[in-house]
Amino acid sequence: MDRIPILRMGPVLLVSIQLDMHDQIALVLQDDLTNAITTHGAKGVLIDISAVSVVDSFMGRMLANIAGIARVLDAITVVVGMQPAVAITLVELGLSLEGVRTALNVEKGMAHLQSVVASAGALSDPGDDADGAD
Amino acid sequence: MDRIPILRMGPVLLVSIQLDMHDQIALVLQDDLTNAITTHGAKGVLIDISAVSVVDSFMGRMLANIAGIARVLDAITVVVGMQPAVAITLVELGLSLEGVRTALNVEKGMAHLQSVVASAGALSDPGDDADGAD
Repeated sequence: MDRIPILRMGPVLLVSIQLDMHDQIALVLQDDLTNAITTHGAKGVLIDISAVSVVDSFMGRMLANIAGIARVLDAITVVVGMQPAVAITLVELGLSLEGVRTALNVEKGMAHLQSVVASAGALSDPGDDADGAD
Repeated sequence: MDRIPILRMGPVLLVSIQLDMHDQIALVLQDDLTNAITTHGAKGVLIDISAVSVVDSFMGRMLANIAGIARVLDAITVVVGMQPAVAITLVELGLSLEGVRTALNVEKGMAHLQSVVASAGALSDPGDDADGAD
């Protein structure tokens, strides 16, 4: 079990990080996520880090990398569930997670993503042939 | 990080199992989940086991226990993402996961839960005072 599962929920991919991120697992996640975005045409990536209690510059860089990769593939990344202590540490490390959107929890993150995706027209009438887009 | 995070998505709680389940972590999960169901009034529990490649009778019993607890708290449990080899092993072990609903992936499981919850009237017009229920 050294692979983080990527859960597909409509146009959004959900990743729940529960393991200590090492080089190898981070690379595999980046790879899997990139494939999943292109395969499913995902419009958003939701990364839950509520189980992460210790953060370092590696983790910060990994999140920024994933957000950067998703962006060039036309998907938005939202990091959710950050523990207060993690937020403090990130800022103290000088990592402000620029380019990464955040939300308090999965529910708010998903709502944000769905509103962004909907306003981009991608969520309009799933199952429709999309020829009646406004 | 020896605690499995429980992600709340509206009336559904999502749990992604990525660790080997030992007694302690299973008990903590049961406890957390029970608290989360009562605190949030959750109507459904979605357990993703796509990262689980080895299953034993302990895991089977744990899933059945969680489903049983959820049921008496008026919530439905759906187990999703089971790997083919895991399904084979479960049946060979004589564990048919009775009382546990299953779905192929998170998306289908969520759709199933939402349809069940909606037909129970709990999803009708969130934000409404529910006095106009049909």
